[in-house]
Amino acid sequence: MIPSLPVELSGERFRVAYRIRGTEHAALATARDICVEQTVEFPIGLLPTGDILDRIVGQIEGFEVLDGDHVRATIGYAVETVECDLTQLLNVVYGNYSLKPGVRAEWIELSEAMSRAFTGPRFGRLGVRSALGVPERPLLGSALKPMGLPSRALADLAYQMARGGIDLIKDDHGLANQPFARFEERVQCCADAVARANQETGQRSIYAPNVTASGDEVFRRARLAKAAGAGGLLIAPGLAGLGVMEELSRDDQIGLPILSHPAFQGSFVVDPDHGVSPFLIFGQIARLAGADASIFPSYGGRFAFSRDECHDIVAGTSVPMGKINASFPVPGGGMTLSRVPDLLGFYGAEAIFLIGGDLFQPGGTLVERCQAFRRSVESVRHVRLT
Amino acid sequence: MIPSLPVELSGERFRVAYRIRGTEHAALATARDICVEQTVEFPIGLLPTGDILDRIVGQIEGFEVLDGDHVRATIGYAVETVECDLTQLLNVVYGNYSLKPGVRAEWIELSEAMSRAFTGPRFGRLGVRSALGVPERPLLGSALKPMGLPSRALADLAYQMARGGIDLIKDDHGLANQPFARFEERVQCCADAVARANQETGQRSIYAPNVTASGDEVFRRARLAKAAGAGGLLIAPGLAGLGVMEELSRDDQIGLPILSHPAFQGSFVVDPDHGVSPFLIFGQIARLAGADASIFPSYGGRFAFSRDECHDIVAGTSVPMGKINASFPVPGGGMTLSRVPDLLGFYGAEAIFLIGGDLFQPGGTLVERCQAFRRSVESVRHVRLT
Repeated sequence: MIPSLPVELSGERFRVAYRIRGTEHAALATARDICVEQTVEFPIGLLPTGDILDRIVGQIEGFEVLDGDHVRATIGYAVETVECDLTQLLNVVYGNYSLKPGVRAEWIELSEAMSRAFTGPRFGRLGVRSALGVPERPLLGSALKPMGLPSRALADLAYQMARGGIDLIKDDHGLANQPFARFEERVQCCADAVARANQETGQRSIYAPNVTASGDEVFRRARLAKAAGAGGLLIAPGLAGLGVMEELSRDDQIGLPILSHPAFQGSFVVDPDHGVSPFLIFGQIARLAGADASIFPSYGGRFAFSRDECHDIVAGTSVPMGKINASFPVPGGGMTLSRVPDLLGFYGAEAIFLIGGDLFQPGGTLVERCQAFRRSVESVRHVRLT
Repeated sequence: MIPSLPVELSGERFRVAYRIRGTEHAALATARDICVEQTVEFPIGLLPTGDILDRIVGQIEGFEVLDGDHVRATIGYAVETVECDLTQLLNVVYGNYSLKPGVRAEWIELSEAMSRAFTGPRFGRLGVRSALGVPERPLLGSALKPMGLPSRALADLAYQMARGGIDLIKDDHGLANQPFARFEERVQCCADAVARANQETGQRSIYAPNVTASGDEVFRRARLAKAAGAGGLLIAPGLAGLGVMEELSRDDQIGLPILSHPAFQGSFVVDPDHGVSPFLIFGQIARLAGADASIFPSYGGRFAFSRDECHDIVAGTSVPMGKINASFPVPGGGMTLSRVPDLLGFYGAEAIFLIGGDLFQPGGTLVERCQAFRRSVESVRHVRLT
């Protein structure tokens, strides 16, 4: 015998939109299944009438036929199934359903109380601009690579990039704690190099080392980075855990801007009929997990993302979610100097443009190519993506 | 100018097999791209000849045409790209390539040194059997549900399950820290209930609460669970992070068997031409990240996994990896009492059979249905999956 709920439910709900493959009839059955699978995960016929059946099980609040083979169902869940627990939110949104084909989670609408409870990006777009001392223009990012270089060589690259006007200089996400450039040594060398360049230029470039690691090692590395003078942190939440990134963002002792890298998260987005939409995973979820800037593979590079997907990611980084800060979209993944004008036209000024390997191509020194990159983006000051 | 490596490389390599969609010609180009993308992520033409090009960039060690449209490429990577860093191993195996279509990571072969460096499951199959006091027969698992029940009602279910002979009684993975059953209260009630049943029966059933949460909260909950008398822990690494599960497994103060739940990991496996094979994600990777037992959706339940996929997962839980323990496969996801004979025939004795909702169906009390489940599995003692 299943008793009643021991607590009063507030009646507040959050909503998740799912794109479901199937005919209207089949998709309705799937939507009903989502309501159960993502909450009580229990034979619905065995739940007695009462609060669990009526209020804990998800409820279909919207149902819209998109085409002959797809439906969008909006499902509302009681806030109490999640409260402000990020991992449990992700679990209700798509935990078990990730194991079933034909359903994609598209977006989340938090309740009022939830959007107050989640901290979100500590800096957000405005905070990152303030840290960099760049109020308006598009921002420039680059990556220290290739893996295998010693710390001093990486630091020299960082110095040249900062001299060339790159705002955000990050470790390549493959730089961990390898013997060629141990974390502590590398971070100190690179942070010092960027500080020296900043003294010379008067700018405020930031070095963001990669702190992706297992469990508490993330926090140990982040504290080392902070002590060494790093101005930001890079982390791949698909590897380290979205919950770890969230905790990192909330750590007042660390308190640095967080740059999220999409490594190991691609499987969420490659199948348009499955997974989590780019809008949600690289936009809304990255923000809920505290990313001040969210790297993703731009259209037109080495990866297969479309313009529409990139547009959706940008929208997800700034869609209103209560008081939760907007994050910076960071298009990267094979961008080149020659494509900057097109990218600026597409993304506008509210982005961090990430160019890595192309800065090392022939046709000038690294400093000169960084300066050329800088001049390109300075040509656009007030364009906003609409 | 890219200098030489600052350290001597050991020459040791680990290998990853990738299933690549495409003609032989196209797949070879993809394999070459993987070698670069997963390591230096740098324009290959700009690397001078030398150690980085020759030894850090991955190397194709095997190339086998599977059919007209698929190739298996085995790529070797220098151990130094990873050492014993789990998140960096996952990054080299499939970090950026997760963002590209048409490539699936199938299996890993660690080097000697790596298989010594990774801890793996603390208990493994033998340790879990020893903790439960069950040397040979197939093991029984069930889940406390539905979400919404108060702690005392969940504890009563746990008591009845333990009385009925269930070995491993876990929280449903949707039980977090909701107001209907706060973590600390629930865990104490359920641990006490199972202890009381054990005293009465003389058995050693284990209660495994769900500690999935953000960052350090995982460890706080795990310590509370240990103090309350829980005999195991449930964690969903897709939500909390594989690195967090790994650290949890290595924590000597906690030291409890770890049960891994596949929530939010399904996108790795739904597309046979993408992602990470079930063998790798629920077998090898779960073990590397410390799972003593790995839950997955069995064929014939609510999910869409095939017999072949389930067979592969079982193989991944026990494939030799140096001294790293084998983990228990835990088939679940809509299993029913009536299907136990078939499941036993398929999985043999070296599995934990997880039945949840079906134990609540009419046709006897919960204790009686658990006893029937127990009698079913006791009919098989020495069958091993071949």
